[in-house]
Amino acid sequence: MATVLDMSISVDGYIAGPNEEPGHIEQLHHWLFWGADSGENGVPSIPDGVNRSVVQEILATGAVVVPRLTFEQGGEFHGDHHGGVPIFVLSRGGEPDGGSRWPLVTYVSDVGDALRRARTAAGDRDVMVHGGAGTVARAIAAGELDEFALHVVPVLLGTGRPLFSELPAGTRLTRTRVLEGEEGVTHIRYRVDRSWN
Amino acid sequence: MATVLDMSISVDGYIAGPNEEPGHIEQLHHWLFWGADSGENGVPSIPDGVNRSVVQEILATGAVVVPRLTFEQGGEFHGDHHGGVPIFVLSRGGEPDGGSRWPLVTYVSDVGDALRRARTAAGDRDVMVHGGAGTVARAIAAGELDEFALHVVPVLLGTGRPLFSELPAGTRLTRTRVLEGEEGVTHIRYRVDRSWN
Repeated sequence: MATVLDMSISVDGYIAGPNEEPGHIEQLHHWLFWGADSGENGVPSIPDGVNRSVVQEILATGAVVVPRLTFEQGGEFHGDHHGGVPIFVLSRGGEPDGGSRWPLVTYVSDVGDALRRARTAAGDRDVMVHGGAGTVARAIAAGELDEFALHVVPVLLGTGRPLFSELPAGTRLTRTRVLEGEEGVTHIRYRVDRSWN
Repeated sequence: MATVLDMSISVDGYIAGPNEEPGHIEQLHHWLFWGADSGENGVPSIPDGVNRSVVQEILATGAVVVPRLTFEQGGEFHGDHHGGVPIFVLSRGGEPDGGSRWPLVTYVSDVGDALRRARTAAGDRDVMVHGGAGTVARAIAAGELDEFALHVVPVLLGTGRPLFSELPAGTRLTRTRVLEGEEGVTHIRYRVDRSWN
Protein backbone atom coordinates (compact mmCIF):
# COMPACT_ATOMS: atom_id res chain seq x y z
CA MET A 1 0.00 0.00 0.00
CA ALA A 2 2.91 2.35 0.72
CA THR A 3 6.20 2.95 -1.05
CA VAL A 4 8.85 2.73 1.66
CA LEU A 5 12.47 3.78 1.34
CA ASP A 6 14.30 1.12 3.31
CA MET A 7 17.98 1.82 4.05
CA SER A 8 20.67 1.04 6.58
CA ILE A 9 22.55 4.24 7.27
CA SER A 10 25.46 5.34 9.44
CA VAL A 11 24.93 8.03 12.07
CA ASP A 12 26.72 10.44 9.74
CA GLY A 13 24.38 9.64 6.87
CA TYR A 14 26.24 7.22 4.61
CA ILE A 15 24.78 4.13 2.97
CA ALA A 16 28.16 2.82 1.86
CA GLY A 17 31.73 3.54 2.82
CA PRO A 18 34.34 5.07 0.50
CA ASN A 19 34.94 3.05 -2.65
CA GLU A 20 32.20 0.67 -1.53
CA GLU A 21 34.72 -1.14 0.64
CA PRO A 22 33.34 -4.53 1.68
CA GLY A 23 34.22 -3.96 5.35
CA HIS A 24 32.16 -0.83 5.52
CA ILE A 25 29.21 -2.35 3.73
CA GLU A 26 29.25 -5.24 6.15
CA GLN A 27 29.38 -2.78 9.04
CA LEU A 28 26.10 -1.26 7.90
CA HIS A 29 24.34 -4.50 6.98
CA HIS A 30 25.62 -6.87 9.62
CA TRP A 31 22.43 -6.54 11.66
CA LEU A 32 20.35 -7.86 8.75
CA PHE A 33 22.11 -11.14 8.26
CA TRP A 34 23.84 -12.18 11.41
CA GLY A 35 21.68 -13.53 14.21
CA ALA A 36 23.06 -14.61 17.55
CA ASP A 37 22.93 -18.24 16.37
CA SER A 38 25.18 -17.57 13.38
CA GLY A 39 28.03 -18.80 15.50
CA GLU A 40 31.62 -18.79 14.41
CA ASN A 41 31.13 -20.61 11.13
CA GLY A 42 30.12 -17.34 9.53
CA VAL A 43 26.90 -18.62 8.00
CA PRO A 44 24.29 -15.86 7.81
CA SER A 45 21.00 -16.39 9.57
CA ILE A 46 17.99 -14.22 10.20
CA PRO A 47 18.54 -12.15 13.36
CA ASP A 48 16.58 -12.39 16.58
CA GLY A 49 14.43 -10.02 18.57
CA VAL A 50 13.59 -6.58 17.28
CA ASN A 51 15.91 -6.86 14.30
CA ARG A 52 14.14 -10.07 13.30
CA SER A 53 10.75 -8.36 13.25
CA VAL A 54 12.16 -5.56 11.10
CA VAL A 55 13.70 -8.05 8.66
CA GLN A 56 10.35 -9.81 8.46
CA GLU A 57 8.69 -6.55 7.50
CA ILE A 58 11.18 -6.17 4.66
CA LEU A 59 10.49 -9.74 3.54
CA ALA A 60 6.75 -8.97 3.55
CA THR A 61 7.04 -6.26 0.89
CA GLY A 62 5.45 -7.08 -2.45
CA ALA A 63 7.84 -5.41 -4.91
CA VAL A 64 11.30 -3.88 -4.96
CA VAL A 65 12.50 -0.71 -6.71
CA VAL A 66 16.25 -0.34 -6.92
CA PRO A 67 18.70 1.73 -8.97
CA ARG A 68 20.81 -0.17 -11.46
CA LEU A 69 24.10 0.52 -9.66
CA THR A 70 22.82 -0.97 -6.40
CA PHE A 71 21.27 -3.87 -8.29
CA GLU A 72 24.54 -4.70 -10.00
CA GLN A 73 26.67 -4.20 -6.88
CA GLY A 74 24.33 -6.59 -5.09
CA GLY A 75 25.05 -9.32 -7.64
CA GLU A 76 21.66 -8.64 -9.24
CA PHE A 77 20.24 -10.46 -6.17
CA HIS A 78 20.64 -13.63 -8.25
CA GLY A 79 17.40 -12.55 -9.88
CA ASP A 80 15.31 -12.80 -6.69
CA HIS A 81 15.54 -10.15 -3.96
CA HIS A 82 13.13 -12.00 -1.68
CA GLY A 83 10.15 -14.28 -2.05
CA GLY A 84 9.88 -14.03 -5.83
CA VAL A 85 8.45 -10.51 -5.82
CA PRO A 86 8.93 -8.35 -8.92
CA ILE A 87 12.01 -6.13 -9.09
CA PHE A 88 11.95 -2.82 -10.93
CA VAL A 89 15.45 -1.64 -11.79
CA LEU A 90 15.92 2.06 -12.44
CA SER A 91 18.05 2.49 -15.51
CA ARG A 92 18.17 5.64 -17.61
CA GLY A 93 19.24 3.54 -20.57
CA GLY A 94 16.29 1.19 -20.19
CA GLU A 95 16.80 -2.50 -20.77
CA PRO A 96 20.28 -3.86 -21.38
CA ASP A 97 21.10 -5.32 -24.79
CA GLY A 98 19.51 -8.73 -25.06
CA GLY A 99 16.86 -7.86 -22.47
CA SER A 100 16.62 -8.85 -18.83
CA ARG A 101 18.26 -12.12 -17.88
CA TRP A 102 15.87 -12.58 -14.96
CA PRO A 103 12.13 -13.17 -15.26
CA LEU A 104 11.32 -11.11 -12.13
CA VAL A 105 13.33 -8.08 -13.27
CA THR A 106 11.94 -5.16 -15.30
CA TYR A 107 14.08 -2.19 -16.30
CA VAL A 108 12.36 1.19 -16.06
CA SER A 109 13.86 4.57 -16.93
CA ASP A 110 11.61 6.88 -14.90
CA VAL A 111 11.41 6.77 -11.08
CA GLY A 112 7.78 7.79 -10.87
CA ASP A 113 6.82 5.21 -13.48
CA ALA A 114 8.79 2.50 -11.67
CA LEU A 115 7.13 3.31 -8.34
CA ARG A 116 3.64 3.33 -9.81
CA ARG A 117 4.22 0.00 -11.55
CA ALA A 118 5.70 -1.49 -8.40
CA ARG A 119 2.72 -0.29 -6.40
CA THR A 120 0.34 -2.01 -8.77
CA ALA A 121 2.39 -5.18 -8.72
CA ALA A 122 2.58 -5.21 -4.91
CA GLY A 123 -1.20 -5.00 -4.49
CA ASP A 124 -1.99 -4.65 -0.81
CA ARG A 125 1.63 -5.08 0.23
CA ASP A 126 4.22 -2.32 0.59
CA VAL A 127 6.82 -1.50 -2.02
CA MET A 128 10.43 -1.53 -0.85
CA VAL A 129 12.56 1.21 -2.34
CA HIS A 130 16.25 0.54 -1.92
CA GLY A 131 18.02 3.47 -3.46
CA GLY A 132 20.68 6.08 -3.28
CA ALA A 133 20.46 9.85 -3.10
CA GLY A 134 19.31 10.40 -6.67
CA THR A 135 16.50 7.90 -6.42
CA VAL A 136 15.28 9.32 -3.13
CA ALA A 137 15.34 12.89 -4.40
CA ARG A 138 13.49 12.08 -7.62
CA ALA A 139 10.94 9.88 -5.84
CA ILE A 140 10.13 12.66 -3.35
CA ALA A 141 9.95 15.23 -6.13
CA ALA A 142 7.57 12.93 -8.04
CA GLY A 143 5.36 12.65 -4.95
CA GLU A 144 5.70 8.88 -5.09
CA LEU A 145 7.55 8.16 -1.85
CA ASP A 146 5.31 7.60 1.17
CA GLU A 147 7.59 6.50 3.99
CA PHE A 148 11.18 6.20 5.19
CA ALA A 149 12.35 3.16 7.13
CA LEU A 150 15.85 4.05 8.31
CA HIS A 151 18.04 1.60 10.18
CA VAL A 152 20.59 3.83 11.92
CA VAL A 153 23.81 1.90 12.58
CA PRO A 154 26.03 3.20 15.42
CA VAL A 155 29.10 4.13 13.45
CA LEU A 156 30.61 7.24 11.88
CA LEU A 157 32.04 6.29 8.48
CA GLY A 158 33.54 9.73 7.85
CA THR A 159 33.07 9.48 4.10
CA GLY A 160 31.29 7.42 1.47
CA ARG A 161 28.01 7.49 -0.40
CA PRO A 162 25.46 9.77 1.33
CA LEU A 163 21.78 8.89 1.36
CA PHE A 164 20.63 12.47 1.42
CA SER A 165 21.75 14.91 -1.22
CA GLU A 166 20.08 16.63 -4.14
CA LEU A 167 16.89 16.69 -2.05
CA PRO A 168 14.17 19.20 -2.69
CA ALA A 169 14.39 21.82 0.08
CA GLY A 170 12.02 21.58 3.00
CA THR A 171 10.17 18.30 3.23
CA ARG A 172 8.31 17.70 6.45
CA LEU A 173 8.19 14.22 7.93
CA THR A 174 6.07 12.63 10.63
CA ARG A 175 7.79 10.11 12.85
CA THR A 176 5.58 7.03 13.03
CA ARG A 177 7.74 4.55 14.92
CA VAL A 178 11.04 4.10 16.76
CA LEU A 179 12.39 0.65 17.63
CA GLU A 180 15.58 -0.03 19.56
CA GLY A 181 17.14 -2.92 17.69
CA GLU A 182 19.99 -5.16 18.74
CA GLU A 183 23.60 -4.21 17.93
CA GLY A 184 22.68 -0.59 18.70
CA VAL A 185 20.68 -0.25 15.48
CA THR A 186 17.79 2.21 15.79
CA HIS A 187 14.89 1.65 13.40
CA ILE A 188 13.06 4.90 12.73
CA ARG A 189 10.08 5.22 10.43
CA TYR A 190 8.79 8.49 9.02
CA ARG A 191 5.87 9.38 6.81
CA VAL A 192 6.67 11.91 4.09
CA ASP A 193 4.24 14.77 4.54
CA ARG A 194 4.75 17.67 2.19
CA SER A 195 7.17 20.32 1.09
CA TRP A 196 6.81 23.76 2.58
CA ASN A 197 8.56 25.49 -0.31
CA MET B 1 32.08 14.16 33.93
CA ALA B 2 31.53 13.68 30.19
CA THR B 3 31.95 15.99 27.21
CA VAL B 4 28.71 15.75 25.27
CA LEU B 5 28.09 17.05 21.78
CA ASP B 6 24.55 18.37 21.97
CA MET B 7 22.91 19.26 18.67
CA SER B 8 19.51 19.48 17.02
CA ILE B 9 19.80 17.99 13.58
CA SER B 10 17.51 17.38 10.61
CA VAL B 11 16.95 13.83 9.36
CA ASP B 12 19.28 14.64 6.46
CA GLY B 13 22.05 15.77 8.79
CA TYR B 14 21.92 19.56 8.82
CA ILE B 15 22.27 21.78 11.88
CA ALA B 16 21.22 24.92 10.02
CA GLY B 17 19.47 25.63 6.74
CA PRO B 18 21.07 27.35 3.77
CA ASN B 19 22.34 30.86 4.56
CA GLU B 20 21.34 30.29 8.18
CA GLU B 21 17.79 31.30 7.32
CA PRO B 22 15.84 32.12 10.47
CA GLY B 23 12.89 29.94 9.42
CA HIS B 24 15.07 26.87 9.13
CA ILE B 25 16.85 27.49 12.40
CA GLU B 26 13.54 27.81 14.14
CA GLN B 27 12.39 24.57 12.52
CA LEU B 28 15.29 22.72 14.16
CA HIS B 29 15.11 24.43 17.54
CA HIS B 30 11.38 24.91 17.99
CA TRP B 31 11.16 21.90 20.32
CA LEU B 32 13.60 23.52 22.77
CA PHE B 33 11.73 26.70 23.39
CA TRP B 34 8.08 26.26 22.66
CA GLY B 35 6.06 24.35 25.19
CA ALA B 36 2.37 23.59 24.76
CA ASP B 37 1.58 26.51 27.06
CA SER B 38 3.40 29.03 24.89
CA GLY B 39 0.06 29.84 23.35
CA GLU B 40 -0.38 32.23 20.50
CA ASN B 41 1.45 35.15 22.04
CA GLY B 42 4.73 33.65 20.84
CA VAL B 43 6.50 33.83 24.17
CA PRO B 44 8.98 30.97 24.56
CA SER B 45 8.58 28.62 27.48
CA ILE B 46 10.27 25.43 28.54
CA PRO B 47 8.58 22.46 26.83
CA ASP B 48 6.69 19.68 28.54
CA GLY B 49 7.09 15.94 28.78
CA VAL B 50 10.09 14.17 27.30
CA ASN B 51 11.41 17.31 25.65
CA ARG B 52 11.31 19.06 29.01
CA SER B 53 13.48 16.41 30.63
CA VAL B 54 16.00 16.68 27.79
CA VAL B 55 16.13 20.46 28.11
CA GLN B 56 16.70 20.06 31.83
CA GLU B 57 19.69 17.82 31.12
CA ILE B 58 21.15 20.54 28.93
CA LEU B 59 20.55 23.11 31.67
CA ALA B 60 22.35 20.83 34.14
CA THR B 61 25.65 20.91 32.25
CA GLY B 62 28.50 22.72 33.99
CA ALA B 63 30.32 24.36 31.09
CA VAL B 64 29.79 25.13 27.41
CA VAL B 65 32.24 24.80 24.52
CA VAL B 66 31.17 26.54 21.33
CA PRO B 67 32.86 27.69 18.13
CA ARG B 68 33.09 31.43 17.64
CA LEU B 69 30.76 31.49 14.62
CA THR B 70 27.97 29.79 16.55
CA PHE B 71 28.64 31.99 19.55
CA GLU B 72 28.34 35.15 17.49
CA GLN B 73 25.33 33.96 15.50
CA GLY B 74 23.65 33.21 18.83
CA GLY B 75 24.05 36.81 19.94
CA GLU B 76 26.91 35.72 22.20
CA PHE B 77 24.16 34.27 24.43
CA HIS B 78 24.12 37.72 26.07
CA GLY B 79 27.15 36.48 27.95
CA ASP B 80 25.31 33.65 29.76
CA HIS B 81 24.34 30.43 27.96
CA HIS B 82 22.58 29.03 31.02
CA GLY B 83 22.89 29.21 34.76
CA GLY B 84 26.08 31.25 34.79
CA VAL B 85 28.33 28.37 33.75
CA PRO B 86 31.65 29.18 32.04
CA ILE B 87 31.68 29.39 28.24
CA PHE B 88 34.76 28.44 26.25
CA VAL B 89 34.68 29.93 22.77
CA LEU B 90 36.81 28.27 20.12
CA SER B 91 38.64 30.94 18.17
CA ARG B 92 41.76 30.34 16.12
CA GLY B 93 42.67 33.96 16.59
CA GLY B 94 42.35 33.77 20.37
CA GLU B 95 40.82 36.66 22.24
CA PRO B 96 39.35 39.57 20.32
CA ASP B 97 41.02 42.96 20.57
CA GLY B 98 40.17 44.48 23.92
CA GLY B 99 39.54 41.06 25.49
CA SER B 100 36.29 39.32 26.28
CA ARG B 101 33.34 41.56 26.99
CA TRP B 102 31.71 38.89 29.16
CA PRO B 103 33.08 37.61 32.49
CA LEU B 104 31.92 34.02 31.85
CA VAL B 105 33.52 33.81 28.40
CA THR B 106 37.07 32.58 27.71
CA TYR B 107 38.49 32.40 24.19
CA VAL B 108 40.60 29.32 23.46
CA SER B 109 42.35 28.49 20.19
CA ASP B 110 42.74 24.70 20.55
CA VAL B 111 39.74 22.34 20.77
CA GLY B 112 41.47 19.80 23.01
CA ASP B 113 42.61 22.55 25.34
CA ALA B 114 39.12 24.07 25.47
CA LEU B 115 37.52 20.71 26.26
CA ARG B 116 40.02 19.92 29.02
CA ARG B 117 39.56 23.33 30.61
CA ALA B 118 35.78 23.03 30.35
CA ARG B 119 35.91 19.60 31.97
CA THR B 120 37.87 20.97 34.89
CA ALA B 121 35.51 23.91 35.24
CA ALA B 122 32.42 21.68 35.11
CA GLY B 123 33.63 19.47 37.96
CA ASP B 124 31.21 16.58 38.36
CA ARG B 125 28.81 17.98 35.78
CA ASP B 126 28.86 17.28 32.03
CA VAL B 127 30.33 19.64 29.47
CA MET B 128 28.02 20.69 26.66
CA VAL B 129 29.72 20.94 23.28
CA HIS B 130 27.66 22.89 20.79
CA GLY B 131 29.62 22.91 17.61
CA GLY B 132 29.73 22.44 13.90
CA ALA B 133 31.49 19.90 11.74
CA GLY B 134 35.02 21.19 12.29
CA THR B 135 34.69 21.23 16.07
CA VAL B 136 33.24 17.73 16.14
CA ALA B 137 35.93 16.31 13.89
CA ARG B 138 38.78 17.90 15.85
CA ALA B 139 37.30 16.94 19.21
CA ILE B 140 36.98 13.29 18.14
CA ALA B 141 40.50 13.30 16.69
CA ALA B 142 41.78 14.75 19.98
CA GLY B 143 40.05 11.95 21.91
CA GLU B 144 38.21 14.55 23.96
CA LEU B 145 34.59 13.90 22.93
CA ASP B 146 32.79 11.31 25.05
CA GLU B 147 29.18 11.35 23.93
CA PHE B 148 26.72 12.53 21.31
CA ALA B 149 23.27 13.79 22.26
CA LEU B 150 21.43 14.22 18.96
CA HIS B 151 17.95 15.64 18.73
CA VAL B 152 16.68 14.43 15.37
CA VAL B 153 14.01 16.77 14.03
CA PRO B 154 11.55 15.30 11.49
CA VAL B 155 12.38 17.42 8.49
CA LEU B 156 14.55 17.19 5.38
CA LEU B 157 16.21 20.57 4.84
CA GLY B 158 17.82 19.56 1.54
CA THR B 159 20.83 21.78 2.05
CA GLY B 160 22.57 23.82 4.73
CA ARG B 161 25.34 23.36 7.26
CA PRO B 162 26.05 19.65 7.86
CA LEU B 163 27.00 18.38 11.30
CA PHE B 164 29.14 15.56 10.00
CA SER B 165 31.97 16.21 7.60
CA GLU B 166 35.74 16.14 7.85
CA LEU B 167 35.33 13.27 10.34
CA PRO B 168 38.10 10.77 10.92
CA ALA B 169 37.11 7.55 9.13
CA GLY B 170 35.58 4.77 11.15
CA THR B 171 34.50 5.76 14.63
CA ARG B 172 32.39 3.24 16.47
CA LEU B 173 29.58 4.41 18.72
CA THR B 174 27.50 2.71 21.37
CA ARG B 175 23.87 3.75 21.57
CA THR B 176 23.08 4.48 25.19
CA ARG B 177 19.56 5.91 25.02
CA VAL B 178 16.64 6.65 22.72
CA LEU B 179 13.77 8.90 23.79
CA GLU B 180 10.71 9.68 21.70
CA GLY B 181 10.18 13.37 22.27
CA GLU B 182 7.20 15.50 21.40
CA GLU B 183 6.91 17.17 17.97
CA GLY B 184 8.40 14.01 16.45
CA VAL B 185 11.87 14.81 17.82
CA THR B 186 13.91 11.68 18.58
CA HIS B 187 16.63 12.10 21.20
CA ILE B 188 19.43 9.60 20.64
CA ARG B 189 22.54 9.38 22.79
CA TYR B 190 25.73 7.60 21.78
CA ARG B 191 29.03 6.99 23.54
CA VAL B 192 32.08 7.48 21.34
CA ASP B 193 34.05 4.25 21.51
CA ARG B 194 37.09 4.15 19.32
CA SER B 195 38.32 4.32 15.77
CA TRP B 196 38.99 1.09 13.93
CA ASN B 197 41.40 2.65 11.48
